Amino acid sequence: MLDICLLGTGGMMPLPHRSLTSLMVRFEGSSLLIDCGEGTQIAIKRKGLGYKNIDYILFTHFHADHISGLPGLLLAMGNAQRDETLTIIGPRGLERVVNSLRIIAPELPFDIDFIELDNNKEKISACPYIIDAFKVDHRITCYGYSINIPRAGKFDPEKAKALRLPVNLWGLLQRGETVEHEGELFMPEMVMGPERRGLKVTYTTDTRPTDFITEAAKGSDLFVCEGMYGEPGTAEKAKEHMHMNFEEAAAIAAKANPKKMWLTHFSPAMVRPAEYEWVAKDIFPEACVGKDGMSISLKFDEEE
Amino acid sequence: MLDICLLGTGGMMPLPHRSLTSLMVRFEGSSLLIDCGEGTQIAIKRKGLGYKNIDYILFTHFHADHISGLPGLLLAMGNAQRDETLTIIGPRGLERVVNSLRIIAPELPFDIDFIELDNNKEKISACPYIIDAFKVDHRITCYGYSINIPRAGKFDPEKAKALRLPVNLWGLLQRGETVEHEGELFMPEMVMGPERRGLKVTYTTDTRPTDFITEAAKGSDLFVCEGMYGEPGTAEKAKEHMHMNFEEAAAIAAKANPKKMWLTHFSPAMVRPAEYEWVAKDIFPEACVGKDGMSISLKFDEEE
Repeated sequence: MLDICLLGTGGMMPLPHRSLTSLMVRFEGSSLLIDCGEGTQIAIKRKGLGYKNIDYILFTHFHADHISGLPGLLLAMGNAQRDETLTIIGPRGLERVVNSLRIIAPELPFDIDFIELDNNKEKISACPYIIDAFKVDHRITCYGYSINIPRAGKFDPEKAKALRLPVNLWGLLQRGETVEHEGELFMPEMVMGPERRGLKVTYTTDTRPTDFITEAAKGSDLFVCEGMYGEPGTAEKAKEHMHMNFEEAAAIAAKANPKKMWLTHFSPAMVRPAEYEWVAKDIFPEACVGKDGMSISLKFDEEE
Repeated sequence: MLDICLLGTGGMMPLPHRSLTSLMVRFEGSSLLIDCGEGTQIAIKRKGLGYKNIDYILFTHFHADHISGLPGLLLAMGNAQRDETLTIIGPRGLERVVNSLRIIAPELPFDIDFIELDNNKEKISACPYIIDAFKVDHRITCYGYSINIPRAGKFDPEKAKALRLPVNLWGLLQRGETVEHEGELFMPEMVMGPERRGLKVTYTTDTRPTDFITEAAKGSDLFVCEGMYGEPGTAEKAKEHMHMNFEEAAAIAAKANPKKMWLTHFSPAMVRPAEYEWVAKDIFPEACVGKDGMSISLKFDEEE
């Protein structure tokens, strides 16, 4: 089960009743955070999600509304007694930007590893996640992310029995390890079926529509996408500011056909984004206007 | 009339229902902000106070809970079309710290002047305010501030008439200017009474008790002081962390006798600070436990 929480839905600046856009993904005790604007630590606390298990922080880009909350979050993680290494992933320049912000959070009880993205597409294995980063189209370098939970094939006990493998070795094979028994090597594929469909959530903000986004949204259980402007007739404004409106975001979803779609990163001038939900639903019926704190637990196929 | 708003009352980290400690002072269209932790821009917006007229930002020290909200606030001020120079005042190293944080707010439509404090006590004329900065006693260099609104003496029209000064020159003398009339020089003190009591608000957080604080709090209309721990018997903890508890803060007030006192900068572990108000009131009856958004308009003596 992959737990997703949209911590905030605001773009540009935090508002009293709207936190800045940020997504928390949790799987088997490991949390992954995408973007961390001013106040994200408060939104995490409000949902009672905890700071200590944040193993990965991904940044789409370095505009303040996506990263200004980092020093405070790092200190909060330190106060929560985190001592394991944190991995931060983001566009080139990441380490310089983070270290510059850390002038007010210089001492932390954990190390930070940096992964700087440089190519149009990058795949990062970050246990338990496989992260696909893809460059999008904003005023500065910006990435979208697909977070994948791969799922091994089904274990076939009949095959294991036929191989005369003792039961105490089955678990190792199920976990993907090769096993030696009575001088013979046994590989996982000898007892496991083909890899099954896992889980996938795709997140992208601060971009014009691009083919990379459509591609990434394909096969997603949840597609979280910016919709800076809700009202129809905002295409020109969206283009000028290098953002997307509801219509453009929904059009991507209509092509990619993810299971669900949440809109986020609303302009501070849009007081009630839900009023325009119909604009997106007309184009992609599974589209939902996001709300601060909106959560979902994505389940593997047979779990449903 | 000097308008004061305690924007937040939290110490260490912002909480869902408690912003970080910060004070906004407003006088005749000019706003002055002391400290700006993560979320201060939200607290300002919540009170509807506006960003554009913030002419001065004072920092007590460079711990994150007092300065992490600066990049976001600067951008919000830029969005509010501010184009006049902003003056930022704080301990030595200020310009380096602010510029380091500005990696995510590099382009602003206004200039920033820096005033770095270096001495135990400094007086800064920052129209319409006279600021007295005084060094306090924390783990890193930290200052408290008294914000003063001076008040000229009363104009005596009889004296002006006796000097045969035409009425159209009275205003210049009232505003403190020297006037020439028929070859003769007239000084303000020739028509003005002695300087009257103005207004004074003193703010100090993150410190052990010191004589400088008592001295600064003397004659204050409002003394805003940290009380990190409320419950009695926390003197040791307060000492260890270089903070003050309610008893220590109230003891300063009992010596200095300001007109009013607000406690602030509460530990996140203290869920309901108001429960311990009696601890402070037992020592200084005018002590009040601060609340986010608490406001007061201080009036000159005759205005009351």
